Amino acid sequence: MELGMIGLGRMGANMAQRLVQRGHRVVGFDPGAQARERAAQGGIEPVESLADMIERLPAPRVVWMMVPAGDPVDRTIADLLPQLARGDTIIDGGNSFYKDTVRRGTMLAEHGIAYVDSGTSGGVWGLSEGYSLMVGGDEAVVDRLRPIFEALAPAADRGWGRVGPTGAGHFTKMVHNGIEYGMMQAYAEGFAIMQKRADFALDLGQIAQIWRHGSVVRSWLLDLSANALEENPTMAGIAPYVSDSGEGRWTVAEAIELDVSAPVITLSLLERLRSREDDSFADKLLAAMRAQFGGHAIRKE
Amino acid sequence: MELGMIGLGRMGANMAQRLVQRGHRVVGFDPGAQARERAAQGGIEPVESLADMIERLPAPRVVWMMVPAGDPVDRTIADLLPQLARGDTIIDGGNSFYKDTVRRGTMLAEHGIAYVDSGTSGGVWGLSEGYSLMVGGDEAVVDRLRPIFEALAPAADRGWGRVGPTGAGHFTKMVHNGIEYGMMQAYAEGFAIMQKRADFALDLGQIAQIWRHGSVVRSWLLDLSANALEENPTMAGIAPYVSDSGEGRWTVAEAIELDVSAPVITLSLLERLRSREDDSFADKLLAAMRAQFGGHAIRKE
Amino acid sequence: MELGMIGLGRMGANMAQRLVQRGHRVVGFDPGAQARERAAQGGIEPVESLADMIERLPAPRVVWMMVPAGDPVDRTIADLLPQLARGDTIIDGGNSFYKDTVRRGTMLAEHGIAYVDSGTSGGVWGLSEGYSLMVGGDEAVVDRLRPIFEALAPAADRGWGRVGPTGAGHFTKMVHNGIEYGMMQAYAEGFAIMQKRADFALDLGQIAQIWRHGSVVRSWLLDLSANALEENPTMAGIAPYVSDSGEGRWTVAEAIELDVSAPVITLSLLERLRSREDDSFADKLLAAMRAQFGGHAIRKE
Amino acid sequence: MELGMIGLGRMGANMAQRLVQRGHRVVGFDPGAQARERAAQGGIEPVESLADMIERLPAPRVVWMMVPAGDPVDRTIADLLPQLARGDTIIDGGNSFYKDTVRRGTMLAEHGIAYVDSGTSGGVWGLSEGYSLMVGGDEAVVDRLRPIFEALAPAADRGWGRVGPTGAGHFTKMVHNGIEYGMMQAYAEGFAIMQKRADFALDLGQIAQIWRHGSVVRSWLLDLSANALEENPTMAGIAPYVSDSGEGRWTVAEAIELDVSAPVITLSLLERLRSREDDSFADKLLAAMRAQFGGHAIRKE
Repeated sequence: MELGMIGLGRMGANMAQRLVQRGHRVVGFDPGAQARERAAQGGIEPVESLADMIERLPAPRVVWMMVPAGDPVDRTIADLLPQLARGDTIIDGGNSFYKDTVRRGTMLAEHGIAYVDSGTSGGVWGLSEGYSLMVGGDEAVVDRLRPIFEALAPAADRGWGRVGPTGAGHFTKMVHNGIEYGMMQAYAEGFAIMQKRADFALDLGQIAQIWRHGSVVRSWLLDLSANALEENPTMAGIAPYVSDSGEGRWTVAEAIELDVSAPVITLSLLERLRSREDDSFADKLLAAMRAQFGGHAIRKE
Repeated sequence: MELGMIGLGRMGANMAQRLVQRGHRVVGFDPGAQARERAAQGGIEPVESLADMIERLPAPRVVWMMVPAGDPVDRTIADLLPQLARGDTIIDGGNSFYKDTVRRGTMLAEHGIAYVDSGTSGGVWGLSEGYSLMVGGDEAVVDRLRPIFEALAPAADRGWGRVGPTGAGHFTKMVHNGIEYGMMQAYAEGFAIMQKRADFALDLGQIAQIWRHGSVVRSWLLDLSANALEENPTMAGIAPYVSDSGEGRWTVAEAIELDVSAPVITLSLLERLRSREDDSFADKLLAAMRAQFGGHAIRKE
Repeated sequence: MELGMIGLGRMGANMAQRLVQRGHRVVGFDPGAQARERAAQGGIEPVESLADMIERLPAPRVVWMMVPAGDPVDRTIADLLPQLARGDTIIDGGNSFYKDTVRRGTMLAEHGIAYVDSGTSGGVWGLSEGYSLMVGGDEAVVDRLRPIFEALAPAADRGWGRVGPTGAGHFTKMVHNGIEYGMMQAYAEGFAIMQKRADFALDLGQIAQIWRHGSVVRSWLLDLSANALEENPTMAGIAPYVSDSGEGRWTVAEAIELDVSAPVITLSLLERLRSREDDSFADKLLAAMRAQFGGHAIRKE
Repeated sequence: MELGMIGLGRMGANMAQRLVQRGHRVVGFDPGAQARERAAQGGIEPVESLADMIERLPAPRVVWMMVPAGDPVDRTIADLLPQLARGDTIIDGGNSFYKDTVRRGTMLAEHGIAYVDSGTSGGVWGLSEGYSLMVGGDEAVVDRLRPIFEALAPAADRGWGRVGPTGAGHFTKMVHNGIEYGMMQAYAEGFAIMQKRADFALDLGQIAQIWRHGSVVRSWLLDLSANALEENPTMAGIAPYVSDSGEGRWTVAEAIELDVSAPVITLSLLERLRSREDDSFADKLLAAMRAQFGGHAIRKE
């Protein structure tokens, strides 16, 4: 198939390249000249404007957006809309909030343009191993795009699927990331407990390796943890500072909105927030309260 | 009544003094000369040995221990045992683990010595306001000690009571402290949220004062929080480091042993542990995992 | 002063009555005839329309809304707006979301109408004991309304205050309720632990009474718990089903938005959600997973 | 090698059979005649007494215990001790508490008997796929047992290892199970969120299948979840009741003892406790408190 890829950052460039490697033609746009050059080396046809991209694609056109969630998606759609025709398709492969996706899909449907969301998991390993794709959109439209999804997924018949209407893909990806937070936190806590128990002098990288084979907790995240722990057993030079990218927050909010108690996903988000509080006002007030009622000494800063 | 007080630290000395102020005779022992001198100024008769204390008390003797939980209690009982006679009573007014109290009570019963546990709440304010006392022990024995409890409590008929057999007092005090952890954490989180919302420029001490009158969250801990926030609105110079003294851990363990899910008491303990982790291995590993799968940048220490 | 009260449900009627008892004139509107009749018996002048209310109030008019949060507030403002004049004041005494309050304040300011938010705590006890009022709004406007707040509060100089600009009152009340959730959950867990420890046969109402005097955990919520536990020690006939009314959710969302980790307030909300899940899909899946890997027997429904 | 297997329940019998399949000789004891018969069909030599087992094994003897944690292990060791000689080895392959293991090892060392702990993961799938084995014990002893571990593990060089001295194996297995709890809960919450979002009509089994390939959350527990969700998409007939088998509790207690905050592992245990509370006293008290302060209606049972 032929498709336009908007956004040639790490994720977009890798996905475009995987498509090219599997025989698809990809016209790629990115505002950065460097990104375009790198993409060109991977066999992608670089263009300097969306207009140029649209011109080079045969109708009905298929455009895949790989841009940051939020305003950039709305702006890209606004830029594309006047240049597209009924029957064209836009795919949002990024981490958009699913309610935004539903809204955009409704708006585009009024213009006769199909809107498909593809929640994409796999990170930097996706280029070689394939991506897991949770696709939302009209059944017939998704069926037409099948060759693209089959090329991006680990295999033609696995690792991807249409999970529901437009928005369902991003919804599923959001929950996926919530689960990911919980799993990561579970491993992190377990290894931290073992690290603290100094008398056994455990080799955490070795234990991760043992667990990778035959244990109940084997997983891809454990494979990565084994890498990380073998490369740097004491986590030397790494700050205990954990970012979060949105989907965890949305999952927590969604769970509450749906009246589902999800304590583990929620606490895994809170621990990330906590990791970034280097001077907790709450803890200071707790110390001050204890001094008030018990005369307990306060530790000075 | 006449009673021996073992341990003239802040809590023991204050309680002894409150008893003296209300007409009781208190013989007080402490290994520290300074503590004995201070106690003497409060009307307590200081002695330099347990033997001397026992000698000065009329039979049947009543001895109140106010010593740190754990081994010090066992050692004190071991020292007292040979000097006591059937019919004497030992009271443990400290924060002993209730299972230890049950064990000690059973052992002392074999020697004909009554063992009473008095969970004591009130902190440094107890001297003036009275203590809340949760008493465990034989009904007749507790009844005989009534004048002591009436003097220590805020009023003769309130703030104290026999809650059950030996051990029940410390059990109840343990749970009391678990609740205290949860309440303190709830306030601390609330004030921290308000502190972070900088655009409203809220005066946290003023808000605590408002809440003290008529609000659903008014409490003695709020009174103390108001003091603390008015004295030091920004918590300047206070390290975000919160100690814990045992009862919180025991409450969490007890809840799990009883198959009771107590998430708030549990998390309030965990937050105290967290406040003391300045270099969380778990958070470092989380950052390292994110770098592995997403190519996310790690913040260097 | 003279003021219109919109909404004569339990909270509105009680507040209006407290104002009348303290010498203010209150014109009260409610769509329900019964509510109007009850209010009339309390000395409130009932009216059958907002137009009638506005007509009976001297300029500059002061109108206090006590209607459910959300659309009803917007509708009431829309109904009032054409009938009000520059210099009039609307007070929202309900539990509105503070961001809505900020938006409404900005809109009304364009019409020259002052908008004041009064977060109100105290529940059904406020009529006799006074309400705790967290007020947001323009300083001069709030100062003009002082007699009203002084009458509603437990005393003229306590239990109320202007905490910041419009929105700050509802923000503070929101956090207040988050803290309330955490405190309530802390008590509930503690009493549940004591209830489960059957061998001590503790009398929970007695323990609550003891704690009310001199203990670190004394509070108004404990007073209420003592009432509840003395009236019904086994909680007979009460379903383990806990509602929530919005502010808890908003507090959790706000904490996350502000990057503040608030585990105890969060978990106290989640426990309420959990109390309403009688057939947890998560727990069923956990049981099914255990059967898959361990051959553990599943309990049939 | 030749070894005695004590306990021919599902785990013991499967492990014995895997050893036999890989050329080892296994003498098996179980008090149950049926268990012995089944084992005999798998090539294990059944015996009716420990004495008989010891007699049939060549010195130095190797005995593997696969009995329930706690007293049964102590009793088995007490029964074995008089029949063993210096240089013999006992392996505990069950889920013993690691502090018990350390204690037993110290005691047995005084008799010249080596004690090795093998934390064993893999469940009912271990027979075909191999077990993950975390081994604690003297280095030379473990080296001598290498052929056994190589046969039980998924491959000779992977899925097993000596992680430290006696006790370290069970410690590591304990933490492994704590992580397992957290991971399971993370998946369960995620699928529950998707199940509750009814408008997308998601096929949870399909989503689990998609995630198995290329996604960040792929794991063996996800493979099992996919099985469970495909077999029974609505979890029909399964009670929301989740058992726990000890290691989760120990991990939580250990984390607290080590001052490590492990909220996710802790909350995953608490949710299991919660799943078994069908009539929460805490929730009833919360409902009763709300009725006290707000006049909120209580739901009758």
